[in-house]
Amino acid sequence: MKGTLSLGVDIGGTGVKLALVDGRGRIRRLQKFASPTKESPTEFLNIVGRWIRRFVGDRHLKTLRGIGLGVAGDVDHVHGRVRISPNLQWRNIPVKTLLRRYLPSIPFIIENDANAAAWAAYWVETHQRAKNLVCLTLGRGVGGGLVLNGVLYRGATGSAGEIGHMTIDLNGPACPCGSRGCIERYVGARALVERVRQAIEDGEQSLVTELVGNNFQAVTPLVIQQAAQRGDRLAQRIWREAGERLGVALASVVNLFNPERIILAGGVARAGRLILDPARRVMRQRAFPVPGHTVRVSLSQLDQDLGVVGAALLVP
Amino acid sequence: MKGTLSLGVDIGGTGVKLALVDGRGRIRRLQKFASPTKESPTEFLNIVGRWIRRFVGDRHLKTLRGIGLGVAGDVDHVHGRVRISPNLQWRNIPVKTLLRRYLPSIPFIIENDANAAAWAAYWVETHQRAKNLVCLTLGRGVGGGLVLNGVLYRGATGSAGEIGHMTIDLNGPACPCGSRGCIERYVGARALVERVRQAIEDGEQSLVTELVGNNFQAVTPLVIQQAAQRGDRLAQRIWREAGERLGVALASVVNLFNPERIILAGGVARAGRLILDPARRVMRQRAFPVPGHTVRVSLSQLDQDLGVVGAALLVP
Repeated sequence: MKGTLSLGVDIGGTGVKLALVDGRGRIRRLQKFASPTKESPTEFLNIVGRWIRRFVGDRHLKTLRGIGLGVAGDVDHVHGRVRISPNLQWRNIPVKTLLRRYLPSIPFIIENDANAAAWAAYWVETHQRAKNLVCLTLGRGVGGGLVLNGVLYRGATGSAGEIGHMTIDLNGPACPCGSRGCIERYVGARALVERVRQAIEDGEQSLVTELVGNNFQAVTPLVIQQAAQRGDRLAQRIWREAGERLGVALASVVNLFNPERIILAGGVARAGRLILDPARRVMRQRAFPVPGHTVRVSLSQLDQDLGVVGAALLVP
Repeated sequence: MKGTLSLGVDIGGTGVKLALVDGRGRIRRLQKFASPTKESPTEFLNIVGRWIRRFVGDRHLKTLRGIGLGVAGDVDHVHGRVRISPNLQWRNIPVKTLLRRYLPSIPFIIENDANAAAWAAYWVETHQRAKNLVCLTLGRGVGGGLVLNGVLYRGATGSAGEIGHMTIDLNGPACPCGSRGCIERYVGARALVERVRQAIEDGEQSLVTELVGNNFQAVTPLVIQQAAQRGDRLAQRIWREAGERLGVALASVVNLFNPERIILAGGVARAGRLILDPARRVMRQRAFPVPGHTVRVSLSQLDQDLGVVGAALLVP
């Protein structure tokens, strides 16, 4: 007999998360591992398969509704393959085939991690009320997921929702994706850290220098956030500029999707009002009035667990 | 008994079009009028109501499936109101209420004209095969409509799809919409004409001067197209630059929507390969590889009739 629990698996460049999730999106049990990124993709997935087998155990094996797996990258959810994952350095990996043997009789789906996050935001944070929702994960990269008309929107090949790679300045800095001026180049963690380092190298004084004891490898969005909260001018400016640029992108998102909700997650979003206030201000200035005033922009409550919960909830 | 014909009505800033359209989107009869823009909105709609009544006549009155009306502007399709139409200078007009009395017993729907155009492109040009389709109308303004998962996508308040007001340069020229660097400011007819005039004022030689007999009020996209086709350097550069900027926007559209098809219509699009070739090239350079190679970008065959046919086909 089928139970109400699903297993969510979130595979990222740094960590792998497993969670038993109930029908309302609540986590019943959670376990985290460091990603075995030194292994080949096949061995990586063998290791994850054994973790899953152990985590589920005999107790849940018979009643598990299914397994939902979220992976950072371009996912072919129909054939259960990862086409390409820059974070994991995977290319054309038949994830579903490799993992299925560890739990052969259980339904198994695979999805892009930002899509899974959007689904969790829709399901758990809006209780399926915001039928049109855009979720942005602001981390090392900037991922995006779309729920439109109450359905996860994937597009023709499952590649939709790459909001991080919308151009806001056609002559802007080059992006690893091959384009220029992508929003990821302004609000991704790497971009923020780069900007702070550059400014300090150029002679600006900042609390950041002190906070990292002159070790600029240790600069993170959290450090820049702490500096800003303690009144550091440079850090405050970096957040304001990042927020304003995010606002430009959100105005375009609002004009295109006219969503009820935009939900932000990820390490960079945790700076809260430092980035949210300027983003909302610029978004309202630039977007069309009706959709601009309809949309609510907020931080995710689930945040780091969005991906793993969403993957579980996507199991039919 | 209900027949298979619907009436499409397309209300724009310059013309009003009426068409009897069959279930496959073929126009059976078409009539065009100049928009009575000097009248108040109420009188404008009274005039259109009488045109409709006469056009439908007694013969079709009993069998008409319904009336679909497309209007340039922000349309509240639920309540049948135009919230705002900059082209028509309308604000909060209860179009449905005003028009219904002319044909009281017939189902009546109202939709944004670019949304209607997208629906016609999906229905007639792709035979409902391209489940995810983006339609851009490049005219005086740049409108957009979205068919996603085989459904017309409207968003929370019916305002979705304003692709013309996606920012490609955050510090670009101011747009009447209140934002900056919107794609409309680079590929709208007004922007093209402005750029040519400016270049000639700055001393550049161009065939355009000759074609309009020094009357720069007479410059249109068609004139710039003719100059380019006759080898004029300035005109060719203007089209190439417009196409490249359109390509930047299309790359973002591809990364966001991952559509099977992008269909371009409107006077500016009629320049054909002058604008399409650079747009496709830049789009492929900048978009993610899988969605960038999946999408097909083409000109509409129905073109000027997209709006009126789509409005008719939207009648349930």
